Parts: sequence; structure tokens; C-alpha cells
Amino acid sequence: MLKLFVVFGSILACCYAAEPAIKPTKGEVWPKPQEQETSENYLVLQPHTFSFKGPADIGCPNFLNDAFTRYWTIIATLPSQQGQLSEVRGRPQKKFWEADDNFVGYLDSLKVELIGACASEAVRPDLGDDENYSLTISNEGSTLSASTIWGVLRGLETFSQLVYLEGESLVVNATIITDFPRFPHRGLLLDTSRHFQPVYIILQNLDAMAYNKFNVLHWHLVDDPSFPYVSRTYPELSEKGAYHPVSKVYEQSDVSKIIEYARVRGIRVIPEFNMPSHTESWGLSHPELLTACYFNDQPWHAMGPLDPTKNTTYTFLNNLLTEVVDVFPDSHIHIGGDDFSSYFCWKRNPDVKAFMSDNNISSYEQLANYFFQNVISLLDSLNSKYLVWEEVFLNGVTLPNNTTIHVRADGGFDTLAAVTKAGKFGVYSGCWYLDELSTGSDWQKFYECELLDFDGTDEHKKLVLGGAACMWGETVNEYSIMPRVWPRASAVAEKLWSAQDVNDSEAARPRLEEHGCRINRRGIASQPPNGPGVCL
Amino acid sequence: MLKLFVVFGSILACCYAAEPAIKPTKGEVWPKPQEQETSENYLVLQPHTFSFKGPADIGCPNFLNDAFTRYWTIIATLPSQQGQLSEVRGRPQKKFWEADDNFVGYLDSLKVELIGACASEAVRPDLGDDENYSLTISNEGSTLSASTIWGVLRGLETFSQLVYLEGESLVVNATIITDFPRFPHRGLLLDTSRHFQPVYIILQNLDAMAYNKFNVLHWHLVDDPSFPYVSRTYPELSEKGAYHPVSKVYEQSDVSKIIEYARVRGIRVIPEFNMPSHTESWGLSHPELLTACYFNDQPWHAMGPLDPTKNTTYTFLNNLLTEVVDVFPDSHIHIGGDDFSSYFCWKRNPDVKAFMSDNNISSYEQLANYFFQNVISLLDSLNSKYLVWEEVFLNGVTLPNNTTIHVRADGGFDTLAAVTKAGKFGVYSGCWYLDELSTGSDWQKFYECELLDFDGTDEHKKLVLGGAACMWGETVNEYSIMPRVWPRASAVAEKLWSAQDVNDSEAARPRLEEHGCRINRRGIASQPPNGPGVCL
Repeated sequence: MLKLFVVFGSILACCYAAEPAIKPTKGEVWPKPQEQETSENYLVLQPHTFSFKGPADIGCPNFLNDAFTRYWTIIATLPSQQGQLSEVRGRPQKKFWEADDNFVGYLDSLKVELIGACASEAVRPDLGDDENYSLTISNEGSTLSASTIWGVLRGLETFSQLVYLEGESLVVNATIITDFPRFPHRGLLLDTSRHFQPVYIILQNLDAMAYNKFNVLHWHLVDDPSFPYVSRTYPELSEKGAYHPVSKVYEQSDVSKIIEYARVRGIRVIPEFNMPSHTESWGLSHPELLTACYFNDQPWHAMGPLDPTKNTTYTFLNNLLTEVVDVFPDSHIHIGGDDFSSYFCWKRNPDVKAFMSDNNISSYEQLANYFFQNVISLLDSLNSKYLVWEEVFLNGVTLPNNTTIHVRADGGFDTLAAVTKAGKFGVYSGCWYLDELSTGSDWQKFYECELLDFDGTDEHKKLVLGGAACMWGETVNEYSIMPRVWPRASAVAEKLWSAQDVNDSEAARPRLEEHGCRINRRGIASQPPNGPGVCL
Repeated sequence: MLKLFVVFGSILACCYAAEPAIKPTKGEVWPKPQEQETSENYLVLQPHTFSFKGPADIGCPNFLNDAFTRYWTIIATLPSQQGQLSEVRGRPQKKFWEADDNFVGYLDSLKVELIGACASEAVRPDLGDDENYSLTISNEGSTLSASTIWGVLRGLETFSQLVYLEGESLVVNATIITDFPRFPHRGLLLDTSRHFQPVYIILQNLDAMAYNKFNVLHWHLVDDPSFPYVSRTYPELSEKGAYHPVSKVYEQSDVSKIIEYARVRGIRVIPEFNMPSHTESWGLSHPELLTACYFNDQPWHAMGPLDPTKNTTYTFLNNLLTEVVDVFPDSHIHIGGDDFSSYFCWKRNPDVKAFMSDNNISSYEQLANYFFQNVISLLDSLNSKYLVWEEVFLNGVTLPNNTTIHVRADGGFDTLAAVTKAGKFGVYSGCWYLDELSTGSDWQKFYECELLDFDGTDEHKKLVLGGAACMWGETVNEYSIMPRVWPRASAVAEKLWSAQDVNDSEAARPRLEEHGCRINRRGIASQPPNGPGVCL
């Protein structure tokens, strides 16, 4: 990583005496770019004269113009968001730069080059899409260049972060950046089953994800506690399975809105329909899907996982998954598969036992395999790729090599080693559970976790596609989720985007202090990362 | 504690299939009243015909009318807050009670009796004021009776919690309550120095405090990181010591607003001006107040605690405290006194050494005593009582018996035993630090802490005035403080109000589930207390 000049300091002396415990940087980028040269020379950006300029024949002009408008607004409103503190003091805007040797000119435009073609205005992000970009800010002309519109989006985000407020004016240092993500799968899991999260909360998280270059919303949509997805095929699933059939559900129009909001930010939406366990809420409308539990040979009050022995289970899943693959256009779906391996209810149900005997299935592992092979064939017939939680792999289910195993248990490095040694793709969440709390500023524990710290060859490590920060929903509602996720998930964002040697949490502190305040100003209710402080 | 009928169940069968992990109670009171009898019979309250009725000659009619309006509004808006979920289903209001044997009539008014006199409309709450009340809800007449307006306020809060929504209608069970607080000092500490909290956040917390029968806002106003209080006498303290001299300060008008908002809710505001340590921000405008630190006999960059050797220190404190006692009308002030006992800078400063030698002060404990005796005399001359952190007591400072020692260190039971054995008053926060986080639902750790679990006689235990939940400000900003405090502080509220045998956190869960949703509906951004769930 190149960095010719470290520019932490401000151009003006600081105005106020009391300062945060960790002084924020100014105009540093989060997650840290792969290569960056920053000069002490700077340009002044005046919003009323500044614009993004794509060439006339740029691909997907509407898509890009919308992005330009979003980022122009973020930049142009920075003085009113941040600068209100200065304004109330009634100070006139001072053109401090006119007498400053490091001032090298005004930044009137950023030329945006899209080198590759853009398929169509309806283009969708997919796994492995090129997100590279290069960015030059100079008094001799400033350019953002990328092969795809996803690269343009990432570069616009970086550009918006380079701009900072000095006095009441926007400045940006002369800078050269060449940037690309370390991993192609950079996810945030949101759980909308344990607590319902209103659509606006999901959209706010998508904004914050874009500000952190995340590119996958892993939507843990349904689970035991509630089924908020309004299915076109089986509307009774949410009518009876949601916390409330009208106000605590995602209508089809909500889902479309979320997918579209994500798409234009270069974020994929991968829904999770967890099976065969975590399906209690499915049983509220379709009890026949679940395995009745027995205790001391008597039917028990509880219902277990999906019943793998009935053809009707697979008919139902075929209908539901056909819909899901249509509604969620991503190439992948997450079919869960955690917490099934105690086989508690399968083991005790006499019909299951009879089925196994009739079909020469001699172990519960084989029964699980039977279930998953059926589901996999459904997904294959739908041309959908899939992710599964690590238990599916660890329980010996036969999985083709294009399956992605989502490693989640504590640490998880042994599992990631086994997954990649077996030639499967891995996505990692082992140490990135955002519901795990500790006293104090605790993002460092996420930051100091290196996902490739497992025993494997380079070839094995190449099978790791990335990871996801997981916001399980037991203890977060709409009032607490934003400060719980942010900026703690930002630590994971940097692990997944930046170079492997960007791993010093102490060095990262001042940048995260700035970034936390940056996303606060952009409307994200982020908690403080570093102890006593203030966002001015 | 009496309770003739336990009424957890709802009158109507529940409407939706998916339910929270812990089902909320309906119309249960938090904190739990000392004595309560609840019948299965209920009355229906129709807001347009319901009113509070004080007799014509009731004391402080304006004060009480304002309280009646607040609580009428809370009750009358419950259907629109909670019931919107039903309303969107377009269901007509169903008079289910007309065919129900338990329906015994309509509640058209609550007669409010103030038995004692009310000194004046400007009455202020003070330590030990009577907060007892009795409340009868019956089809033969409903009455709230109390000796003081504080008792009336507590009774109104209880009444508002007894009312719950059934379908789209408000119902209240026939109930008899006799209630009084276990402890007279029930506090919440808010730290506005480590992060500035806007006035609206403090007001929201005062609302939430009233909903939990807290009666002391311990305002940890200034500390090392910043000095946001705008002093009339020394405005430079905040001009240089605040995070921002205009936008991150409490003007005198803000302070008055907060004190008045608290007063009408029966909440005292005790400001803390912590000394001699935690005064770094004071030194930004008044470096002469602080003890210069030395390292290897050379002046060091750091400044230590207040300099106890200079007369000018006491002149300054006299002026500041004279103002503070005038601005904050409570009988008590908190003068801090924690974290001074390493004596790091005092020990190394040659002027301090010379002073000690000249004045026959042979130990740093004696020097601390000299400092505090001077401060105590100032406060005595101002007729102000005071609280100090436990270190002042533990370091052997001579303290009169009317001093209140605020016990804070881990557990703290040995200290509370020593404090009360020495005949001093104790206020307890030892296990109630809200900044201490653990994974999952963690209010139980606060709830299961019994402050009188120390080795002492009944006489000693009577010296414990109560306690305070402490929201230290290192890791909370305005975006995260509300769900961090609520409903975790509610656990402490119940310890301080309810009978000692109300100590089973499992039994409390369904009531806290209801109470968390209740304060959500009233606009408090409370996090979920008990795992998966929903507020309908």
C-alpha cells in the first residue's frame, strides 16, 4: 500500500479546547483503499459550481445520474450538517485558502469514465462482479475510472469521503487512489424474524452498507419466532405466522422496494429461508409441514423441524422456492440448515422411523442427506445457487462443489479449513456476531479477527469468498438496531474490503472516529466507537 | 404483599399466532406496588367521557391540572398508539364487554384526593418527601388518595399503567392498591461530559424516569472530557471547556427548563461538580486551578487534580458553588470525589510538597482532608447538603454524619457496611452501572442485585437512602443512549421502589415485557428486554 504523505492534521488550527479522546482524521476513507497517495495540496469544492461529468455516451446514464445526484447531495449538504455548529457562531465564511500555499485550485468537476459496457439500466450486481476503480484528484483534472458501474459506485463513495469541511468550506486533498475489494462477498445479516424491522430501517441499513462498501444484504427473513414475508403462493404463512398480519409483514411491494434500493447501491439481496429447523412459524399455518415431537412415546406439545418423509413437504417447498427465486432475482439463495443436527423430533417420531425402515435409511445423517438432496434438486431445477450454514457440511450432507458453506460457530477456523480443503466455497461469520456485546468500545474484537487465519494452502484460501457481520435479532428492535450495528459492522467492512495488512486497530481508531461521525451526519444513528467524544 | 387474583390473561383470545418469547402481561404496574388486589371484574374507560376530578379546594390546582392533562393524554392516545395495528385491519370497534359477566361498568372519572396541604404551586420535591398513595378502582367509585402531590403523581402513573387495550377499547380491572416507595432516593445518573446529550434527550429521560417512579436525576454535568455547563460567573469554563461553546453547552435557560420539567414530575435534579479529580476540562480556561504534574522532577504535559494548596482555588470554588447552589435549588449537591486517591500529581509537585511541609501536613490523606474540609465549609455556609463518592469516605476524610456516601465500586457491599456502621447515609450504585454490557438480555443482573445484602444491623440498613443506576457516557451518544438505558434502568427502579421480596427476575419478565412496550408507545426508544418479541 502506497501512501506518500500522511495527512491527519487540519489546515486550520482547531477552534475549541475540549476534544474527543481520539481525534478524528479528516477526509480519510473507510474502508481503507488498497493504494492511496495523498498530497498536502488541496482543492476547494464549491457545491454550486461542482458536478460529476460522465461522457455523453456513458453506459446506463440514468443509473449513474441517480448516483451522481445522491453523492452530490451528500457532499453539498455537508456544510449544513456539520457546519451548523460554525454557522450558529455567526462567523462569515472565510476564504482561508487564498493565502495558503497548499491551495492549488477549485474542484469544479469529477470526470467519470466507465470503461466497460453497462448491460442495461436494469443491471444487477452479482457475485464476483468487478468493483475496481481508480480515482485521481488533481488541479490538472480529476477523474474516476472504472470498468463497471459497481466500480463507479465504490469510487463515488470514496470520493465523497475524501471531501471534508475546513471552516465552512469543503476541501479535498490532491489524491491518487487505485482500489479494489479483497473479497467479493461482503455481507450484513439482518434478522427480521425475532424482531420485525420496519422497511425504513432496512433502507437505512442499505445506505450505511453503501457507506461501508458492503455488497450483500443477507436477509434472514423468517425463522421460528415469526414469518413476516407475505408469500404470493401461501399468504397464510404470514397471516398466521407474522407477529401481526398487516403491520408486521413485508408485502411484495416492500420486498421490491428493498431489492431496488439495494440494487442501485450495488448491493445484492440474498434471502434466507432456513430449513429444516427454525421453521416453527411456518407451522402456525402449515402444521402438516412439521415433524410432530414425541416424548416418552407420547405426542408432545412441540413441533420439530420440517418433516423430511412426506412428499407434500417437497411439493410445498417446490412451490415456495419457485416463488422465492422469482421474487428475489439474485443468483443465490440461503437455505439455512443450522441447528438441525440433534434430530430430537425426527428420532422420536414413529412415522419417521417407519419411513426410514421402509426406505433403508439407517441413520439420521442419511435422513438429513435425503432432505437436502431433495431441496438441492429443486434449486438446481430453478437454476438457483445456494448457501448453507456450516452444519449441513459438518453433518456429511453430500454437496456439490459450487455450494457455499457459511461458517458461523465460535472462531470457526477449523471448519473453514475443512470446507475449503473439501473444495467448497466458504463465507465466514465466525467472530462477527454483532449481538455479542462487551463493555466499552468493542469493534476491535471484530477488527482483529482475520478470516484467513486458518490452516490451508493458498488454493484453499482462494475459496473463501468473504464474510458477513450478523445482527441476530433477539435483543434488537427498531429503536436499538442502528446504534447496535453501526459502526461495529464497519470494522467487518474494512476486514472484507481492505488489504490483509490493514489490521492495526489502534491505527484504525482515528479513521473510525471520523467515519462514525460521517455516517451520523448522513443520518445513520451510529454509536461512538472510541470513548469520550463529539461529532462536530 | 397482597394479591387476591392474578390476572395475566387477556379477556379476548389472542388474535395472532406468532407471539413474543415472553408474553407480556396486561395492565400490570412497574415498579410493582407494595400491596395490590386485582379482580377479574373490569371497567371500560372511554376517553371522551373520562376525567380526573380534584375537589374544588384541592391544593396546587394548576400543578395538578397539568399532571391530569399529561396522564389523560397518555391514556387517551393509547388506542391510537397501540391500536393502530388493529385499526389498519379495518375492524369496527366491538363492544365485547356488553356480553361479558366480568364487565361491571364504565369508568367516567377518577376522584383525586390530596389529604395534606400543598405548600405552593412552586413546590419542589425533596429527600424523604411522602410519596405514598392509595388507589381504588371500582364500579362503586374510583379514588386516588395521597398526602402530597408527589403521592398523587405516583398514583397517576400507576393508574395510567393499569389501563390497557382490549381490542380497540380501554379497560381497567377493579383494583385496590396501597403503595409507597421502599427507598426515598431513586436515581438515574446521566453523564453529559463524556458525550454531550441534547436537552431533548434529558427531557425524554425525565419522562421515562416518571414512568418508572425514579425521583432523582443525578446530573453528572461536567468531568475531564468537557465542561458543558454555561456558568454565569465563569462563562469561560464552557467557552473553552465544552466540546463546542455554542452548540454543545447547557445555557442557563436549558438548565431551568430541565429542572422545571423534572419538578412537575416529582424528580429532583442533583448536579455533580466532581472534585478534586475529573477536572481536566476546568483547566482549559483556568489552568491555575490544577496541580501541575511532574515526572522525573520535570514538569509534565499533564495537569492533575485541583490544586488544594492555593487560596485562589477555594475562592474560585466559593464563587462557583455559590452560583451552583442558586441555579440548582435542590437541597443537595454531589461533589464527586472519586479517583483522587493515587495522589499522582500532588505527590510529584514541588509546590505541593513545600505547602505540606510549611503546614505540617504529613500525608496525602491529610492533604485530601484539608481540601474537603474547605469545600465542606463552603457548602455549610451555603446551607447545601452534599453527596460524595465512596473514595472520600474510604480515604479517611472527616465527614459529618449528615453526609451521604455514594457507593459505586464493584459490588460495594463491604463499603456500604462500613459507611452505615460509621453512621453515614449511603446511596448505592455498586452493581448498577448501565455501561457494563453483556450479551443477551442483561437487565436481570441489575435486578438480582439486592442493595441491603450487606453485613449490618437494621439500624445500619435504615441509613441506606436508596441508589442510582449510572449511565456513564464513554460509549453512548444521543443516538444510542435511550435504548442503552431503557428498560435496563427499569430493573433498578423496581429494586428501589418495590418490596424487598419482589426479587424474582423470572416472575418479573412478563411485566417488564409489557412495561418495555408501554414506554415504547409513550415515545421512549427502549430496547427489547426478553429476546424475540413484538410490541403490538
